[in-house]
Amino acid sequence: MTPDELKLLIRTVPDFPNAGIQFRDITTLIGNGRGLAATVQMLAEAAQAAGAAGIAGMEARGFIFGAAVAVQLELPFIPIRKPGKLPIATIGVDYALEYGSDRLEIDPDAIEEGDNVVIVDDLIATGGTAEAAAKLLRMAGANVEQSLFVIDLPDLGGARLLEDNGVSVFSIMQFEGE
Amino acid sequence: MTPDELKLLIRTVPDFPNAGIQFRDITTLIGNGRGLAATVQMLAEAAQAAGAAGIAGMEARGFIFGAAVAVQLELPFIPIRKPGKLPIATIGVDYALEYGSDRLEIDPDAIEEGDNVVIVDDLIATGGTAEAAAKLLRMAGANVEQSLFVIDLPDLGGARLLEDNGVSVFSIMQFEGE
Repeated sequence: MTPDELKLLIRTVPDFPNAGIQFRDITTLIGNGRGLAATVQMLAEAAQAAGAAGIAGMEARGFIFGAAVAVQLELPFIPIRKPGKLPIATIGVDYALEYGSDRLEIDPDAIEEGDNVVIVDDLIATGGTAEAAAKLLRMAGANVEQSLFVIDLPDLGGARLLEDNGVSVFSIMQFEGE
Repeated sequence: MTPDELKLLIRTVPDFPNAGIQFRDITTLIGNGRGLAATVQMLAEAAQAAGAAGIAGMEARGFIFGAAVAVQLELPFIPIRKPGKLPIATIGVDYALEYGSDRLEIDPDAIEEGDNVVIVDDLIATGGTAEAAAKLLRMAGANVEQSLFVIDLPDLGGARLLEDNGVSVFSIMQFEGE
């Protein structure tokens, strides 16, 4: 399947989670077996081209794509989790949301110093979560130069923010005019 | 890798999340690329043997294994989510926890009537979450006869509870004496 065919599998839900937001829903993409497999294959090829030694994915939708990419390449998967989920001493980073703030945590033992870790998530909008993930992985010693997304909303500037932080951005499909 | 070798990759964390509980942590298993791939391969073989037409996984750790199994078999992945995460009209089921209760939701459009859906999660303890997942999938029209877990804690009775509900249980490894 092509990126354009995969894009047709995305469901757009108006006014979720807030009025005026067009939510791009991957439930319908992953509910298509061929579509899911083709998506993961494209992400895995991009991760391999970037020389990934490990794949990091953000809770929870990033787990869907990130872990599958790691399996395809027989690489470690590093879950980037919400606070309090990991049972061991973690390192974390707080980051601002449009309203309020949030926190991401990882197990620092999951990273070897200098490991080339590629970030995977379903969607990049303003890039705040991905920027925080890159910072956190770097705090743990990882080399972070590449991020992969199924969907990019380019008008929200997330890809530019990541590039400014030295992280290249690959996305399978883009929705303009958000 | 064999199940015994995979079991050596599980980290046991005492007294998490509560005193007296030995937490069996899959972070170290999925942090081993060969271990993660072998685990998913074993689950995928069991799903295929059960004639799976779709794979359902519970947020969040069930996404790690479930989606990867779906990709291996080119099957749909049905995310079983915490409340309020899905952007569309959902169906849900409330279930009791040791303290309090919780709720699972799915997109009913993700299931075709009579689909043979196999449940995947990282661990089965008392089985409350998996029992609720089976109930919810059946409410949506799925045929649910098989569940797959990386870890079973057999002394907590979850596998017996599921079998009593007509759901067979496959697990890669077991920790007795919990």
